[in-house]
Amino acid sequence: MRKVFQEELARVGDELIEISKLVTEAIEKATTAFEGADIDLAEEVIAADAKIDFLQNSLDENAIDILALQGPVASDLRMVVGSLRMSASLERMGDLARHIAQLTRLRYPATVIPAPLRETFKSFAEHDLLIAQKLTVLLETRDLEVAREIMKANSAVNDLHLSVFKAIAHSDWQESAASTVDVALASRYFERFSDHGVSVAQKVTYLVTGAWQPSIIEHG
Amino acid sequence: MRKVFQEELARVGDELIEISKLVTEAIEKATTAFEGADIDLAEEVIAADAKIDFLQNSLDENAIDILALQGPVASDLRMVVGSLRMSASLERMGDLARHIAQLTRLRYPATVIPAPLRETFKSFAEHDLLIAQKLTVLLETRDLEVAREIMKANSAVNDLHLSVFKAIAHSDWQESAASTVDVALASRYFERFSDHGVSVAQKVTYLVTGAWQPSIIEHG
Repeated sequence: MRKVFQEELARVGDELIEISKLVTEAIEKATTAFEGADIDLAEEVIAADAKIDFLQNSLDENAIDILALQGPVASDLRMVVGSLRMSASLERMGDLARHIAQLTRLRYPATVIPAPLRETFKSFAEHDLLIAQKLTVLLETRDLEVAREIMKANSAVNDLHLSVFKAIAHSDWQESAASTVDVALASRYFERFSDHGVSVAQKVTYLVTGAWQPSIIEHG
Repeated sequence: MRKVFQEELARVGDELIEISKLVTEAIEKATTAFEGADIDLAEEVIAADAKIDFLQNSLDENAIDILALQGPVASDLRMVVGSLRMSASLERMGDLARHIAQLTRLRYPATVIPAPLRETFKSFAEHDLLIAQKLTVLLETRDLEVAREIMKANSAVNDLHLSVFKAIAHSDWQESAASTVDVALASRYFERFSDHGVSVAQKVTYLVTGAWQPSIIEHG
C-alpha cells in the first residue's frame, strides 16, 4: 500500500515536470514566432496549448484520486495540494505563451513590436525562457539555489516591464494607438508569465523548507 | 465526528461567501473611485486587499486541515478541493479590483478614462459588480439559474472589451500613448475580473451537477 502511494505521488511529480517542459517549449516557440513574425510557429503554439490543459486536468484528477484513496497527511498532503496549485500556475503560463502567439498571428505579416523596443522584448523572451527552464530543473532537483535564480530573473523581468511603460510615456514615442496597446499587453504577458513562475518556485520552496520565505514573497 | 466534519465543511463554505462579499465591496469601491478619481476611496481598496489575502490563506488552511483530519471522499472531497480553487479565483478578483484602484491613484487628480469611453467603462463596472454580487448569491443558494446570469453578464463584458480595442484602433482615436495604455490595461482588468467570476460559477455548477457543462466552459 505504502509503495503504491509513493509511486502515485511520484507520478504527480513527473506530470508537473512534463507540463513544465511543455510550457518551456511553448514560451520558446511563442517568443521566436513573436520576434520573427512566424505565423506557422505561432499556430503551432496555439494548437499545442490544448495538450497542456489536458495534462493539467489529468494531473488534477490523479491528485484528487490520491486524496480520496490514500488520505495523505502532513508533508504528503502539502505536496498533493501544492501540486494542484502548481499545475494551475503552469497551465496559466501556457495560456500566456498562447496569448503571445495570438498577438503574433493578429499582426502578421507585421511584427508586433516596433524597432526601438525590439531589444527589450528579446531580453524579456530570454528571461521568461530561462525561468521556464529553471522551473523544470527546480521541480526535478528541489535545489533552492535554482529557486533563487528564478526570483532574480523575475526581478529583471519587472525592470523590463517598467522600462516599456516609461518608453511609451516618453515624449518621443511615435507609434500608433493599436501598436501602443500591443506593446503594453505583450509586456504584461511576459511579466505575468514570470510572476506565475515565481509562484511555482515559492511553492516548491515552501514544500522543501516547510515555511514561507517572507523575503521572496511578492504580491501580484 | 460526522457532525464536526459537516460543520467544518460549512465553515469553508461560509468563508467563501465572506470573501465573495469583500470582493464585491472591493469592486464597487474601486470602480466608484475609478470613475470619480477619488483617491481616498482608491487607497481604501488598496489597503483592504490584504484582508482578502488573509481570508484566502485562512480558508486554505482550514480546507487542508479537513483533508488531513477527516479524509473526505466523493462529493465532500470535490467540495474541499473546489473551495481551494474558488478561493484562488476570488483572491485574484480582489487583486484586479486593487489594480483598478492603483490605476486611479496613478493618474489622480485626472480620471483614467477619456470622455468618449466613460460610458463603456461605466457599463463594465456595472457588469463586474453584478457578477460579484451574483457570485455571493450563487455560493449561498447554489441556484444554477444564477450561474447562467453570470455567464450572460460575462458575455456582455467580453463585448465591451472588444469595443474598447476597436475604439483604440479607430482612426479618430486622439489620446496620448500613456492614456491609451491605461485604457487597454483597465479594459483587461475588467475583463479578467469577469473571467474569474465565471471560473467560480463553473466550479459551483460542477459541484452541484457533478459534471462540467461544455457549453459554458470558456478558455481564458
